[in-house]
Amino acid sequence: MSTPPETATTILAAPTPAAWVDAAAGHWRSLLTDHANCEKKAASTALALIFAYPEDIALGVALARLAREELRHFEQVVRMMQQLEVPFERQKPGRYASALRRHAASAEPRRKVDLLLMGALIEARSCERFRLLAPRLPAPLGDFYADLERAEARHHELYLEHAQASAGDIDWRGRLRQLAQVEAELVTAPEPVLRFHSGTISIF
Amino acid sequence: MSTPPETATTILAAPTPAAWVDAAAGHWRSLLTDHANCEKKAASTALALIFAYPEDIALGVALARLAREELRHFEQVVRMMQQLEVPFERQKPGRYASALRRHAASAEPRRKVDLLLMGALIEARSCERFRLLAPRLPAPLGDFYADLERAEARHHELYLEHAQASAGDIDWRGRLRQLAQVEAELVTAPEPVLRFHSGTISIF
Repeated sequence: MSTPPETATTILAAPTPAAWVDAAAGHWRSLLTDHANCEKKAASTALALIFAYPEDIALGVALARLAREELRHFEQVVRMMQQLEVPFERQKPGRYASALRRHAASAEPRRKVDLLLMGALIEARSCERFRLLAPRLPAPLGDFYADLERAEARHHELYLEHAQASAGDIDWRGRLRQLAQVEAELVTAPEPVLRFHSGTISIF
Repeated sequence: MSTPPETATTILAAPTPAAWVDAAAGHWRSLLTDHANCEKKAASTALALIFAYPEDIALGVALARLAREELRHFEQVVRMMQQLEVPFERQKPGRYASALRRHAASAEPRRKVDLLLMGALIEARSCERFRLLAPRLPAPLGDFYADLERAEARHHELYLEHAQASAGDIDWRGRLRQLAQVEAELVTAPEPVLRFHSGTISIF
């Protein structure tokens, strides 16, 4: 784990389109509901990895801590929704996480490295979007998103460090570049619904 | 939620047999590995309920907090295993949680009430076993289990309160007594493996 940490934007293959930021800032009430779902999903993804690789103790402890932080953020998003009188509504998840996951290798140890690299990319994208949205959102939401960007800034590094530690002979940097291309396609291509990790919105 | 909280032992239909406590105290290294798995499982069960009932905001926030506490305990159990040089080994789970879960109603709202009542029973049993084991285990494990009993003492009340809040016309007290009978059978009947929630051990 001697590599210097890469910043969130370094590992992403494309920036979020300005059109997504405009749409998200204009429809932040709808976005907040999906954001609450994303924080839950981030915790459950971390937990699923703890169950999948129980012999990797260092990974288990690191991901348990990360899952706790995501759950705390979920609680904060729910409080923010109550404060801003955003009613709860069931939303179908966007295509992002499931479409990305379809690219994970099925055989180990490649699968573990892929899942960890995907975790890094998802966290990096989340941070980038918190940063882009923070100055565009009304108070107290803008400050909240700026806080979340700082709080989650190291999550993608944690995933990267464990991908590297699990990689052995696998060219994890090359694989990261491949998966980053897939991720970039998903957040830039048109998509019919607005979600925290959606592409450019075609319909609301 | 006006009912006075019931203590852990009040809701259990039978105490843990002395033979289980003897076996567990004598094989605490093996038990500790299963205990780590149980803390993870408790967190993932809480998270699954958050996903299953997203419109119940109060439940979601309460269970997110509970899941964070279970994850912190998981991290503490792992540190305790490292301190006591207990090596990690993959273990098959016991029959307890899956056998109990088979009794959950399939139709809502009965299923939600059943799952919450089962959560209450599992937490109550865990607390009872922490309390029974604490004085029988070597330092620092005995003190750790006494701390866990105190920390988790209110978890079963949280599940009970939300079962009651979700019950509507359902006789949740009667259903709790039925499910407590099933639970008591599982922790008192012979079982071939030692686990944190196993029955009386027949083989090691």
